Amino acid sequence: MLVATELRVRYAETDAMGIVHHSTYLLWFEVGRVELLRAYGVPYTEFEARGISSPVVESTLRWKSPARFDDLIRVEASVGELSPARLRFNYRITRPADGKVLCEGYTLHAFTGPSGRPLALSKAAPEFYQALEAKAALDAG
Amino acid sequence: MLVATELRVRYAETDAMGIVHHSTYLLWFEVGRVELLRAYGVPYTEFEARGISSPVVESTLRWKSPARFDDLIRVEASVGELSPARLRFNYRITRPADGKVLCEGYTLHAFTGPSGRPLALSKAAPEFYQALEAKAALDAG
Amino acid sequence: MLVATELRVRYAETDAMGIVHHSTYLLWFEVGRVELLRAYGVPYTEFEARGISSPVVESTLRWKSPARFDDLIRVEASVGELSPARLRFNYRITRPADGKVLCEGYTLHAFTGPSGRPLALSKAAPEFYQALEAKAALDAG
Amino acid sequence: MLVATELRVRYAETDAMGIVHHSTYLLWFEVGRVELLRAYGVPYTEFEARGISSPVVESTLRWKSPARFDDLIRVEASVGELSPARLRFNYRITRPADGKVLCEGYTLHAFTGPSGRPLALSKAAPEFYQALEAKAALDAG
Repeated sequence: MLVATELRVRYAETDAMGIVHHSTYLLWFEVGRVELLRAYGVPYTEFEARGISSPVVESTLRWKSPARFDDLIRVEASVGELSPARLRFNYRITRPADGKVLCEGYTLHAFTGPSGRPLALSKAAPEFYQALEAKAALDAG
Repeated sequence: MLVATELRVRYAETDAMGIVHHSTYLLWFEVGRVELLRAYGVPYTEFEARGISSPVVESTLRWKSPARFDDLIRVEASVGELSPARLRFNYRITRPADGKVLCEGYTLHAFTGPSGRPLALSKAAPEFYQALEAKAALDAG
Repeated sequence: MLVATELRVRYAETDAMGIVHHSTYLLWFEVGRVELLRAYGVPYTEFEARGISSPVVESTLRWKSPARFDDLIRVEASVGELSPARLRFNYRITRPADGKVLCEGYTLHAFTGPSGRPLALSKAAPEFYQALEAKAALDAG
Repeated sequence: MLVATELRVRYAETDAMGIVHHSTYLLWFEVGRVELLRAYGVPYTEFEARGISSPVVESTLRWKSPARFDDLIRVEASVGELSPARLRFNYRITRPADGKVLCEGYTLHAFTGPSGRPLALSKAAPEFYQALEAKAALDAG
């Protein structure tokens, strides 16, 4: 199940090339991911309330077309893969005004406990795991 | 005792006007403040190690002249005022290449404990307070 | 005429104190200002289309209470003062969930042309000036 | 020829997990890339002076270990591949204090002219291309 979030490009997100700085897309991926988890019924704040972090361990981004100040941007996020130790989100960022794809990519996350130790989400929070698994199955279907 | 730190403008710090985004100067103030505390022998990490935070409660910035990508910037920081509950830093940011003053301002900080409650630095960490007081006296002198 | 904009705190906007980094509020002021100008019928992109920039020359911020990841935030912006050479916006940032005021402040802006030279908005774009003046009058009223 | 740059973690670069936010590494890659180009005798400001941009079109990052506030960080950058239309930089970010590798990755760049059109660096700035080629050869050697 893909979750889409709209946002407006901030002036501070642009750079001297007159376009959005490429690092901003990791922030927008994060916005999309947070809204996806909320829509899935497992908000990130609930992970944190249980002492579970999900640090990013890998990401690839492919920038296709530049965004500019004040553009309305659409961030689509979906669950890619899920295992007890790893969760992958896929993203596609577009500008609805002209239909252009601006950036595509993924982030791969681990799960860690309060001490920073890796943990199995399926054991630490089985109902979160099942909620994600159900949605991931739908994504693949 | 004024402490000066040099830094180089990052591309990501510029905006579509082709100049450094104004919010960046609060980050540079922070860099200057951190280096000042280190030079004073009371590094900020030591505050944190004792569970003392110093949140910013007020700041004024006056931007005089723009900075650009790759400029070498000089951040001068000094202790303005010090009381058991408040610490003020003054800043002047210049570009040595042409001597221009880019920004001036201050940040006013409170002291809080682990719970977020205000505390008196003179009681919570008297030797930090004395170190700052000694330097602040020199500043005024 | 006060214009209010809602936004959600991003994870990247927090810092190791567990709260929103104080520099973020200048970005939120900017979001509020941009939406105010849009609501006033003089969007900032129109200023830029005419080669008019409005760099920030002064700002004061007073942080009252911390914001945290995922908080819903309300940014209220209004026009403070207007003269041919200067425009001041006032801001109040609150968290509707508990009614707390998080930050208050203003930004003072100059007007400059393509060369960076100061200009009088009342001459460079009289209809923009009048639109702002009409709203500022309402603010004061 | 690998070029190494040292930098100090800023407080604003941390997040509520108490560690450096993952997006910061793209900024540090940029710092490393800018210093590499300077060391190679083809500073990025010279590209810009000729109207040549080098937008990032692809990047992969692998985060290995977290960085914290005030850590001294070492950014190693080198030229990966070079063709008339593409330039790849490789990065390794370490913390010298404990020798840990924090992040590895690359950025792939295109070359564009003032209009945003792709261009061949070997034609637009042959001496830049040769300088990069000479160093890239050394990297591979």
